Amino acid sequence: MIQVVKLGGAVLEDDALRQEVLLSFASMKGPKVLVHGGGREADKLADDLGIAVQKVAGRRVTDATMLKLVTMMYGGWLNKRVVAELQALGVDALGLSGADANLLKAQRRPAQPIDFGYVGDVQARGVNQSRLKGWLTEGTSPVICAITHDGAGQLLNTNADTMSSVIAQALVGEEPVGLQLCFEKPGVLTDAHDGQSVVPSLTYRQFETMKASGQVVAGMIPKLTEGFRAIASGVSEVWVKASQALNEVSGTRLISE
Amino acid sequence: MIQVVKLGGAVLEDDALRQEVLLSFASMKGPKVLVHGGGREADKLADDLGIAVQKVAGRRVTDATMLKLVTMMYGGWLNKRVVAELQALGVDALGLSGADANLLKAQRRPAQPIDFGYVGDVQARGVNQSRLKGWLTEGTSPVICAITHDGAGQLLNTNADTMSSVIAQALVGEEPVGLQLCFEKPGVLTDAHDGQSVVPSLTYRQFETMKASGQVVAGMIPKLTEGFRAIASGVSEVWVKASQALNEVSGTRLISE
Repeated sequence: MIQVVKLGGAVLEDDALRQEVLLSFASMKGPKVLVHGGGREADKLADDLGIAVQKVAGRRVTDATMLKLVTMMYGGWLNKRVVAELQALGVDALGLSGADANLLKAQRRPAQPIDFGYVGDVQARGVNQSRLKGWLTEGTSPVICAITHDGAGQLLNTNADTMSSVIAQALVGEEPVGLQLCFEKPGVLTDAHDGQSVVPSLTYRQFETMKASGQVVAGMIPKLTEGFRAIASGVSEVWVKASQALNEVSGTRLISE
Repeated sequence: MIQVVKLGGAVLEDDALRQEVLLSFASMKGPKVLVHGGGREADKLADDLGIAVQKVAGRRVTDATMLKLVTMMYGGWLNKRVVAELQALGVDALGLSGADANLLKAQRRPAQPIDFGYVGDVQARGVNQSRLKGWLTEGTSPVICAITHDGAGQLLNTNADTMSSVIAQALVGEEPVGLQLCFEKPGVLTDAHDGQSVVPSLTYRQFETMKASGQVVAGMIPKLTEGFRAIASGVSEVWVKASQALNEVSGTRLISE
């Protein structure tokens, strides 16, 4: 099985946690892809530079300055450090953005109704599938940061959950594909304050019910939506789980019915 | 001929100049590699963050903070923007550090007599030649920033002139290799204040004479030393020239005798 693993930026900035998670990633057999973001780390960098993060309707806007900072943070520091550490663990890691080898071409999000700035929306058909499969066949593990391009010279900030989902979708073929969406919680919880309340499996219908009742809110909604989209596009296994539980049967498995 | 081109970071931060130089790079026929630094841009970022650049004997020291900043600046921003812009110009650019796919393993410089911090010294034998040649054969143009790794998980700041020279040396084989060391001056000058005083060709003996007389000083000395090292290792053509003159017969050609 080809494994696509999404890690958040916070995991990558914590030395002990990063080492633990990268060891798990290194121990995974077979072809594997790592996708990561780093939004909070870029926000911290903006803060250190005295730059105010622009927001519209409570959501971050990627202006030209912020695009530079996210590209520095995800594409530079977080990405290259992970690559060097994976190389030391015997993984032939190759750090990439969507611009590199035209790996993932995005559409800049329309400025209406809200202009989010240099933000790219991605779909599975934008993935350079042959290039990605070629690397996996060679035994190389792409480590992909959540930056894409529009093909006309513009870098774009992209959601890392969406990016991992479309990459998993693009890899669907003869070999089954798994997607592990890792984050700071142990899975989908029935009670946000109770880490023991993990739902072991979740159908799309159950997700709709939890959304309606307010049990699933905020960032979990797009994350799960992307996970179910991967299922619908033929990804064999989709898990939402803690970063520490990477490579373990743990968390919430999304199922098609 | 395989062309290895080294560009400074200052060129990459000037929008008009970068566009001009990337157009020239895009118009070059045959396999090509771009190597770039960005030391001054990293220094500016440090300044914006209120971080003092550490120096010993007038030379920059790469402490842990500075390593993070250079990795963000060269490996993130400068590298990815160039890659996106080259993709728009029809070049299948692939942005890399020395850690990616273990492209260039360096030795951390010994702490004696002076501890320069996280600085890596490179040699041609540290280059992953087969990987690099494989990409060139596929029509991919590696865009390599001056960051390497030690193979044990540590990123290292590396001199971009040296890096381009050892990469050119490692590519020496059946196909001839050219190295273009581009910088802000039109070539080696007999009078530093007269841009018209370009030496069209320079032997190692002449270089030694100019060094002894003080006509060649400071950063030009290591640059030319690396250029002559490439010649001695079988690189067919080595030029020191202005970034704007990339892909033109211009500047100073280094010759073996």
